[in-house]
Amino acid sequence: MTEKRLELNKHEIQKLCNFANDLADHSRKIIRDFRITGFGISEKIDKSVVSEVDLAIETYIRQRVREEHPSHGVLGEELGHTNKLSDFQWVLDPIDGTAEFVKGLPFYGTIIGLFYKQRPIVGIVDHDALNERYTAGFGLGAFRNGSLLRLSDLPIETPNQEYRIATSPPCNLIDRIGNAELFHQIVRHFPNLRIFHSCYTQSGAATGAFDASIELCMRIWDLAAVQILIEEAGGVCNWLTPISNWAQQRYSVIIGRPSVVSKLSKIISVH
Amino acid sequence: MTEKRLELNKHEIQKLCNFANDLADHSRKIIRDFRITGFGISEKIDKSVVSEVDLAIETYIRQRVREEHPSHGVLGEELGHTNKLSDFQWVLDPIDGTAEFVKGLPFYGTIIGLFYKQRPIVGIVDHDALNERYTAGFGLGAFRNGSLLRLSDLPIETPNQEYRIATSPPCNLIDRIGNAELFHQIVRHFPNLRIFHSCYTQSGAATGAFDASIELCMRIWDLAAVQILIEEAGGVCNWLTPISNWAQQRYSVIIGRPSVVSKLSKIISVH
Repeated sequence: MTEKRLELNKHEIQKLCNFANDLADHSRKIIRDFRITGFGISEKIDKSVVSEVDLAIETYIRQRVREEHPSHGVLGEELGHTNKLSDFQWVLDPIDGTAEFVKGLPFYGTIIGLFYKQRPIVGIVDHDALNERYTAGFGLGAFRNGSLLRLSDLPIETPNQEYRIATSPPCNLIDRIGNAELFHQIVRHFPNLRIFHSCYTQSGAATGAFDASIELCMRIWDLAAVQILIEEAGGVCNWLTPISNWAQQRYSVIIGRPSVVSKLSKIISVH
Repeated sequence: MTEKRLELNKHEIQKLCNFANDLADHSRKIIRDFRITGFGISEKIDKSVVSEVDLAIETYIRQRVREEHPSHGVLGEELGHTNKLSDFQWVLDPIDGTAEFVKGLPFYGTIIGLFYKQRPIVGIVDHDALNERYTAGFGLGAFRNGSLLRLSDLPIETPNQEYRIATSPPCNLIDRIGNAELFHQIVRHFPNLRIFHSCYTQSGAATGAFDASIELCMRIWDLAAVQILIEEAGGVCNWLTPISNWAQQRYSVIIGRPSVVSKLSKIISVH
């Protein structure tokens, strides 16, 4: 397979990266404005929570893309998919971890990903409340608040129980695929475990604060920035479900330091 | 049992609260200074991590207590127990969650508790990196950055799977009492679970961001502020191990909204 992303030059990718950062800057402003005024919350059909802030951010980003890149597609958590056939597709989750956001926990994040011919070229995970922005561009590196991220690996003989692993709540697995046993398996093999109900698992894997993270049964917008962020940081992103077809309902991925992802991948099987 | 804490008046407790806040202010300064200069890290006999920052904070607090309350006892994680027979005992964990702190995660906290005749009268959990300070004094209320905390309860008929529960990593249970099954039991009953390797479970329960938290097999300094913080916030603190004797090695506690603590307590048994 030829690398289609090489059809774009670094200057183009850097410009798109800058545009994505500008979108994230304004998303922060929307969140902060709503903090002052307050905001409404409602429950979606799948019983997950959505707030006025989610909708305002997604509306804003869609409008900016339409103005500045009218041919590009946008797929967002709240408002569907436009320009489905474009080579360039923006995928976004305006607030990933809305349940945490509305409870005042700071681990939520705004996720913005840009794909070119189905391959990730730009990714942002922005934790407004923590003042932590993670940005990556294909061939440009991955950064936390402007500082380059570079993941080292761990010795291959490190015992499983010493790995610092992060994952999502067991209810996700149970509600979505009825597979509680998979969660218990993770606990048995990797007991030094943390659980976050948001993309904090992803940014923690990009810095090496977690040696690896396991994201199970997510939607594509939850994972829109994960591959470019981890790969540009020097880590490995192992999709357990192929991402060639975005119509697929749920995606699972193991990310982090190379040897740790390799060990987890041998143990974790979604099917 | 008469409430021994009523021997102290509110004015005295407020003064001790102010002193504890002053200790926490200076602890933050120590952390911030070390962030600039860098600091050494070493492994303790129990394989847990300790940093120069832990030692500097504990040394500083011990010195301040000795100067201003020379008759008071101090029990700290790193440097032992002085004035064991005093009615007033300061119990402290200079950095709870050192493993997270050294990895750059913001969930660690400085814990300061003051006990009078074995009963908690002042408690502080200070999350420096999150700029969140939790303070409580007996009869004075519990506060987050100066705002009063008041926990409401949930309807008794709420299904277990809807409760937002936080706990500590399974490795704590496995390494300390070899009881992995207890963790699996928590997951089965309360799948909407988060895991933190620090006192963030406690502050999240005090605000209601978690409906309840389960702290298993902790040392007394990990839990030095938990009871006063939760009770003054209107929640319930159910010790699963009696705290009358601090020589006891490990303590477990369920904290949070009253009906949720009650339901968890029926299910979770440490022995």
